[in-house]
Amino acid sequence: MAKDALLDYEYPDLDPLPSKIEAEIIPPCDPTADDRLYHICITAISLVVMLILAILARRTKADNRQKGLPGLLSPVNFLDHTQHKGLAVAVFGVLLCKLWGLVISPNPLPFTTDSENKQNWVILGVFYYPALYYPLLACGTLHNKVGYVLGSLLSWTHFVVLVWQKIDCPKTNLIHKHYSLFSSLPQIACLAFLSFQYPLLLFKGLKGTEKNNATEDLSSSYYRDYVKKILQKKKPTAISTSSTETPKLPQRIIDAVKSYIYTPEEAFRFPLKLAVSGVVSFITLYQVCLLLISAVVPPLQMARLGVDEDIANVLTGFMIVLSPDKQEVVRIVVYYMWCVEVCYISAMTLSAVVNLAMLMRSMVMHRSNLKGLYRGDIYNVYNCQRSIRASRPALVCWMGYTSFSAAHICIGMIIQTMVFFLCLLIAVFLIIIPVLHQQNLILFQILLSMWPFWLMILLAVLVQHITARFCFIKKTAGTRDLNNRGNLFLLTYLLFPVNVLIGVLLALWRMIITALFNIVHMGRMDISLLNRNVEAFDPAYRCYAHYLKIEVSQSHPVMKAFCGTLLQSVGQESNAAQRSRDGEEGIQLVQQEKKQCRVSIAKRARGHWQLLYTLVNNPSLVGTRKHFQRPTTESFVNGSLNRSAKEGSKKEAATKETEAAASI
Amino acid sequence: MAKDALLDYEYPDLDPLPSKIEAEIIPPCDPTADDRLYHICITAISLVVMLILAILARRTKADNRQKGLPGLLSPVNFLDHTQHKGLAVAVFGVLLCKLWGLVISPNPLPFTTDSENKQNWVILGVFYYPALYYPLLACGTLHNKVGYVLGSLLSWTHFVVLVWQKIDCPKTNLIHKHYSLFSSLPQIACLAFLSFQYPLLLFKGLKGTEKNNATEDLSSSYYRDYVKKILQKKKPTAISTSSTETPKLPQRIIDAVKSYIYTPEEAFRFPLKLAVSGVVSFITLYQVCLLLISAVVPPLQMARLGVDEDIANVLTGFMIVLSPDKQEVVRIVVYYMWCVEVCYISAMTLSAVVNLAMLMRSMVMHRSNLKGLYRGDIYNVYNCQRSIRASRPALVCWMGYTSFSAAHICIGMIIQTMVFFLCLLIAVFLIIIPVLHQQNLILFQILLSMWPFWLMILLAVLVQHITARFCFIKKTAGTRDLNNRGNLFLLTYLLFPVNVLIGVLLALWRMIITALFNIVHMGRMDISLLNRNVEAFDPAYRCYAHYLKIEVSQSHPVMKAFCGTLLQSVGQESNAAQRSRDGEEGIQLVQQEKKQCRVSIAKRARGHWQLLYTLVNNPSLVGTRKHFQRPTTESFVNGSLNRSAKEGSKKEAATKETEAAASI
Repeated sequence: MAKDALLDYEYPDLDPLPSKIEAEIIPPCDPTADDRLYHICITAISLVVMLILAILARRTKADNRQKGLPGLLSPVNFLDHTQHKGLAVAVFGVLLCKLWGLVISPNPLPFTTDSENKQNWVILGVFYYPALYYPLLACGTLHNKVGYVLGSLLSWTHFVVLVWQKIDCPKTNLIHKHYSLFSSLPQIACLAFLSFQYPLLLFKGLKGTEKNNATEDLSSSYYRDYVKKILQKKKPTAISTSSTETPKLPQRIIDAVKSYIYTPEEAFRFPLKLAVSGVVSFITLYQVCLLLISAVVPPLQMARLGVDEDIANVLTGFMIVLSPDKQEVVRIVVYYMWCVEVCYISAMTLSAVVNLAMLMRSMVMHRSNLKGLYRGDIYNVYNCQRSIRASRPALVCWMGYTSFSAAHICIGMIIQTMVFFLCLLIAVFLIIIPVLHQQNLILFQILLSMWPFWLMILLAVLVQHITARFCFIKKTAGTRDLNNRGNLFLLTYLLFPVNVLIGVLLALWRMIITALFNIVHMGRMDISLLNRNVEAFDPAYRCYAHYLKIEVSQSHPVMKAFCGTLLQSVGQESNAAQRSRDGEEGIQLVQQEKKQCRVSIAKRARGHWQLLYTLVNNPSLVGTRKHFQRPTTESFVNGSLNRSAKEGSKKEAATKETEAAASI
Repeated sequence: MAKDALLDYEYPDLDPLPSKIEAEIIPPCDPTADDRLYHICITAISLVVMLILAILARRTKADNRQKGLPGLLSPVNFLDHTQHKGLAVAVFGVLLCKLWGLVISPNPLPFTTDSENKQNWVILGVFYYPALYYPLLACGTLHNKVGYVLGSLLSWTHFVVLVWQKIDCPKTNLIHKHYSLFSSLPQIACLAFLSFQYPLLLFKGLKGTEKNNATEDLSSSYYRDYVKKILQKKKPTAISTSSTETPKLPQRIIDAVKSYIYTPEEAFRFPLKLAVSGVVSFITLYQVCLLLISAVVPPLQMARLGVDEDIANVLTGFMIVLSPDKQEVVRIVVYYMWCVEVCYISAMTLSAVVNLAMLMRSMVMHRSNLKGLYRGDIYNVYNCQRSIRASRPALVCWMGYTSFSAAHICIGMIIQTMVFFLCLLIAVFLIIIPVLHQQNLILFQILLSMWPFWLMILLAVLVQHITARFCFIKKTAGTRDLNNRGNLFLLTYLLFPVNVLIGVLLALWRMIITALFNIVHMGRMDISLLNRNVEAFDPAYRCYAHYLKIEVSQSHPVMKAFCGTLLQSVGQESNAAQRSRDGEEGIQLVQQEKKQCRVSIAKRARGHWQLLYTLVNNPSLVGTRKHFQRPTTESFVNGSLNRSAKEGSKKEAATKETEAAASI
């Protein structure tokens, strides 16, 4: 009997290797490329690079009207759809990894080993690292061969030194011997990408195939393609005829799964900021997973391997006697600890998979939201009428959006892992292990002893459904109506107490489902976790809504296509030398230049009609027009307090705009 | 020093009375009116009463076409707005109290003291009590003097015996000596109301002032008043001119508070089922409060009074030395326990107040939802297009709604109390007590030592807000646009790491606010706790949505007014003897009778126009019409998948109906 129990509790033996973990002492390792020296050098090099770039920018200014020092100070155009996103994304990735190391490591900055004032060093590091990696971005701004050469050199230096350090000291004492190595993998990947990208750009520059990025955005064919696609006549969809039938269950499940898979679309590109957010979120996911695994699993394994016969005495001290045989007690305890480990790893994996799915789903939602707002479909996206305009809170939210989404993924993952771990523990120790070993079936015994109760609940539910279907509903001439009202009322009265008990189960179910939904969607900023009437009280969703406002009001593809076309036509007619400013300030330019050059009246009329057509098809552009006075917007918003006004207001807006445009 | 500390920890001395609690032994009490005997008698009496009522109903059937045995079997018309709601509400109240006692008490049924098979007795009781109190409802159905006399006698018996028992044995051993007494107060109140109401009805019946309830519903002036109010010309609201200004903060706060206060409106009455739900929820609230107080506070008090110098030894065993003086240790422990008690009572009170406010708010929402659906404003209530028709799930949810709302209040209160208690404990022991005694300021010390971090966060937020306001937004000619894009992008890049840290705080805030919102609104079924796209996954909200469907489709006031008017006009013309069925099946009746009697063509035309007008103003009635074919509804629903179709569908529906009505 005792032997059987012993066999029962046998668990897959581990290699003797893990017992070495405990014994292994990692000697403090000083890489050949000393971190302190390296940082001092690279900071100096970066400074020199920036100086060279500045001098270069001054000289370039003379013969290139678009760039110069201002361009050097804003190397990323976050409101751009067409820019090559690689450089910016890679630099943000490196920055995030550095920030992560800053928070985790006991010595945040390489200049000091003073770990007492860690907080102050972290604060310093938070501003130091963006400045350190700034030249990596700036080198690509000038579209100049010297810039590319400097960028290549800088990224190679960063990359080589990092790889060298990791080869020198693959093991550290931080959290887990390999944690530091794995944690720097995304950083290495980003730097490798940069080291590859800069030479490629240089090569292209030498061959002359590189387009001039300064006007690239507005003259890109992307915006024109987008507009063409919008103006295409919609094919009469064959679906509308078949859609009178409700889709069947398998079809609906497939649709639901598909809505979680992001498939690229030809006529849509993400704005740069969203692309950066996506990559940053993914790196956060990786780092959190790594931290959760390496901070918890190795100590658990060590504790498991350290279990010896003393544990039996300790347990006896707490009046817990698992078995008279001490050896068996050890086996049981080790087995339970192994179960806890498995639960933890499963919970972490589950949480990672869930967050990956959510990330994909977010991408799908971002695209549909952006496209909806471009179409002016404000009510559907925000569930209320809002004016799509730049404002102070919107701008602040826009600035922080990328960072906030990373932080939300991080907190969401930690909470999910904790909750899933608890749930799995309960499931394993109350359900799976008892079922496997056919003992301690406490939960099942309780549930089984309550069978009359469950039977009553089941019968009451069945009776209500069956009577509702067959006795109380009458179908006549396509109309469904109540029947046997007397009996319906009687049944309602008699089943009142039973329904209270059913209601208790329902309330518990409600609690579980709401908590689970909110925990699973914690990392997503594009949906509100609150009820639809108070959505804006969810800070994450509020931020996302504001972010979308700026993105749509400032980088509407139709507006950009319009500006691009106007710039082109003006460029053909008037003097190109007058256009000394950034391409994005094209609207103002165009208006100045319009006055200067005489366009034929027929052409102007055609322009007005094109404008009218564009605005009617894109009402969200209305808010950005000069003629559009504030009071009109206000009256829309206030009118929308009345529900009927709300529903009509979109059409109203379109009509008003038609009038406004017609009166130009 | 020691004396000072001693004085510090002094807490308000309690009367010596509570120490008696511990000593007091409540002798088992047998009331003069033995419960077992009483139940046997009252069951027999109830049976006899039902028999008398049945005989009476058969005799009445001959001279009263409306009532009879079927009427006796459905004493409550849950789909009625005008019925005197008192009787039904009181009986439901009594039933709920009995159910509560059934679950709490160790001897659920009075016939047995077999507490081992409690579960089976509870199941029996769940069906026994509705049957027992059924005659109390049925006596009022026949509108007959004999019925009222029997009802008075029955309710007096119930009332007197209950009061007598409580006077005989005010103290029991259950939970707390007075728990049983307080728990039966709502029951006593309900029975007292019944004992007063039946004689009143009898008196009115003798005086002949009582209206015949059978036709009361349809001929009531309420429905006509409602229709009159709808058809009144709206006064041009003076508010619309001033509403272009956004209301100021104090005004908005006042409005928000007002929206939580239910003020009766002349032209609106709640359906009976909602009134019952309201009262039942209120009684649940009372019972849960009573249970939470009496199950936890007296044991805590007793434990506090039982603290003696032994506690110092026990604590020393756990290596906790609060003070060298044992007497002082006792004082400290007692003081802490008193704090826990205060926290618990505050949490319970807070939860009760919150739930009362939620109950009021629910009433306001019910009214606005019902009125919205009467107007056909489906999209606003459900956030999607739905067909308002009777269906199986809708009917099941309608049957259970009252019970479910009671259960949700119960679970909600328990969870709220637990969560608030935990929060208060943390607040008291980490903030209030340390501040009061100026010691153990751990939390403050941690926060204070992080001041550079907080300062950085604050500065970063301020910088972003200020620059966004003054540098990056440019107002020209009523349009707001971005300015200094270059610097904006630079700032966004540089503040990326700081914003990640801000994002972590934001994510924690999101977690707190979502959890708190859901916990506070746990007891409310009229809002979904989930995101607007998955609202229907919240079982409670789903049930409420279905409940509303049945209520609106079956007891639309305009429909009832229409039926009432038609019945009246027909009654003046045709033979009244043909109307042998219930007034509610009036539509069919009217159609039969219409064929029989020749109405002038002019009158028919006028009728058609009235119908048309009514339907255009109340599109939700359309679904209940015979001509209304299913496919049309389906196409509405499917059409609503497309968002633009969704918004237009209401008008569309109205237009289609106009056509349909015109083609009658």
